[in-house]
Amino acid sequence: MSEAASSSLLVVGSVAFDTVETRAAKRVEVLGGAASYCAVAAGFLTPAPVRLVGVVGDDFPAEHTALLEQQRVDLAGLERVAGRTFRWSGIYSPDFMTRTTLDTQLNVFQDFRPKLPATWGASDYLFLANIDPTLQLSVLEQAARPKFVACDTMNFWISGKRPELVRLLKRVDLLLLNDEEARQLSGEANLPAAARAIRAMGPHAVVIKRGDAGALLFHEAGVFSAPAFPIENVVDPTGAGDSFAGGFMGWLARTGNTTPETIRTAMILGSVLASFCVEDFSLDRFRRLDLSEIRERFTAFADLVHFEKIKI
Amino acid sequence: MSEAASSSLLVVGSVAFDTVETRAAKRVEVLGGAASYCAVAAGFLTPAPVRLVGVVGDDFPAEHTALLEQQRVDLAGLERVAGRTFRWSGIYSPDFMTRTTLDTQLNVFQDFRPKLPATWGASDYLFLANIDPTLQLSVLEQAARPKFVACDTMNFWISGKRPELVRLLKRVDLLLLNDEEARQLSGEANLPAAARAIRAMGPHAVVIKRGDAGALLFHEAGVFSAPAFPIENVVDPTGAGDSFAGGFMGWLARTGNTTPETIRTAMILGSVLASFCVEDFSLDRFRRLDLSEIRERFTAFADLVHFEKIKI
Repeated sequence: MSEAASSSLLVVGSVAFDTVETRAAKRVEVLGGAASYCAVAAGFLTPAPVRLVGVVGDDFPAEHTALLEQQRVDLAGLERVAGRTFRWSGIYSPDFMTRTTLDTQLNVFQDFRPKLPATWGASDYLFLANIDPTLQLSVLEQAARPKFVACDTMNFWISGKRPELVRLLKRVDLLLLNDEEARQLSGEANLPAAARAIRAMGPHAVVIKRGDAGALLFHEAGVFSAPAFPIENVVDPTGAGDSFAGGFMGWLARTGNTTPETIRTAMILGSVLASFCVEDFSLDRFRRLDLSEIRERFTAFADLVHFEKIKI
Repeated sequence: MSEAASSSLLVVGSVAFDTVETRAAKRVEVLGGAASYCAVAAGFLTPAPVRLVGVVGDDFPAEHTALLEQQRVDLAGLERVAGRTFRWSGIYSPDFMTRTTLDTQLNVFQDFRPKLPATWGASDYLFLANIDPTLQLSVLEQAARPKFVACDTMNFWISGKRPELVRLLKRVDLLLLNDEEARQLSGEANLPAAARAIRAMGPHAVVIKRGDAGALLFHEAGVFSAPAFPIENVVDPTGAGDSFAGGFMGWLARTGNTTPETIRTAMILGSVLASFCVEDFSLDRFRRLDLSEIRERFTAFADLVHFEKIKI
């Protein structure tokens, strides 16, 4: 088996039409969804096209399918069913501190039951984006010995499907969530304490995303702090967390290993992809992104936290 | 002039009795005040004892004077006047997210007019802790060609004494403030934009403190992100920002230079001292702190943000 074939990344989650308003502008029914952001971000790094499992309605245009494929996303697992695609609409406060959901229409996503194409069961890296933990578990049932499984979740499942989520957590290597979700899941206000409690629930590693304050990784090798890149012209933060997951998982799939050093680097590549994501609406920044820019920003991250050793 | 004599640090600000309640416990009338925290933190690093300019009442006990002197603080500029020492009282929410001031009694601090002992006018490094900008300006009038001046401020002065603050900012090298204050002063919600606006008001450098999300430095050499050290058992965050300032200024005074590299290292030493400060009430953690622990935590900070260069 070649190196590329042994480092396949599969992403399960939503593909959606987003209507978003920020201080910069408003966009109506643009391509969004956690799986779209994650897969496209990962595709910059993975050796093979990223396998996307999701569902869209018959209103999903060929233009979007073409864009995803062009961005190295394999759509063999993207089901198309009769009905309308998942729609989400939201507005950000001018300072981007709060986001208000105006409308959520699950549409075809309501009855989504992830089905992995036969050959995809052997995928090595799995990312279970934020969906019902019962569905996340069903993906694991269809997967044969993945090397590394990461998942996301949200407040809605933490309060509404806690037993299912707890069952899922026993079977994943890494949980990615934001600071509020970490506090809610663990009952601990202090983030290192929250991470300790969550790791005791199953995942060897926990990544706590803090928006423009960066992300923290807690794992067996200690703690790692990834800064957020200071972006002066934020256009739309939608998808930043999913782009982080994409950069992160994409790097694991590329290197084919999950050593503590690799996971630290994956944190930075996650931050790099997230920092590009917020510079435009939808996947627009990714459409004009190339590897040289990723390389440059990685170097800028290294500079952002660089300081010299001292003698005291 | 010897190296030590050319690197003197002078700190002006409050010395107080704090009554503090946190989830850990309650402490009544313990030693506090911005100048106390800053000077004691700096004293671990400075070549000479830190010069403190402040005022206390006749209720200030010899025990506190002895403690400060033992911690390498020179009290020749600490005025003692008839009346009661400044008192502050506050309570932190269990998650340390919010702090409520219960009582403020300015007492002798109300009429504080900083007076520098004759030989202290030639101090090289000045830190003007958070006091009325008119008083901060009066210190500059008494100082002869300092190498580097940094100041702190707060919402009260930003709204109430803006013209005086603006005048002060034209004469300082660095402004240290928290994220909310940076937004208030600049009118910009985005932190890089806020820093740009503040730098246009005078200071070459701006440090934006973000509590447990670390601190950002914006200066002519770009941006530097200092993480906060993840502390699981936070006891009392009071004085963390002032301890940061102390570690920061202490390192400048120790090295005797203010190159971009030195300022980055100063950011980390500020974070190191702040991380110790929160581990106990008042100055208690500093009383049992030694240089080897500072050295160890500096190394831990380096590890916290370390990641390897990559080839993509």
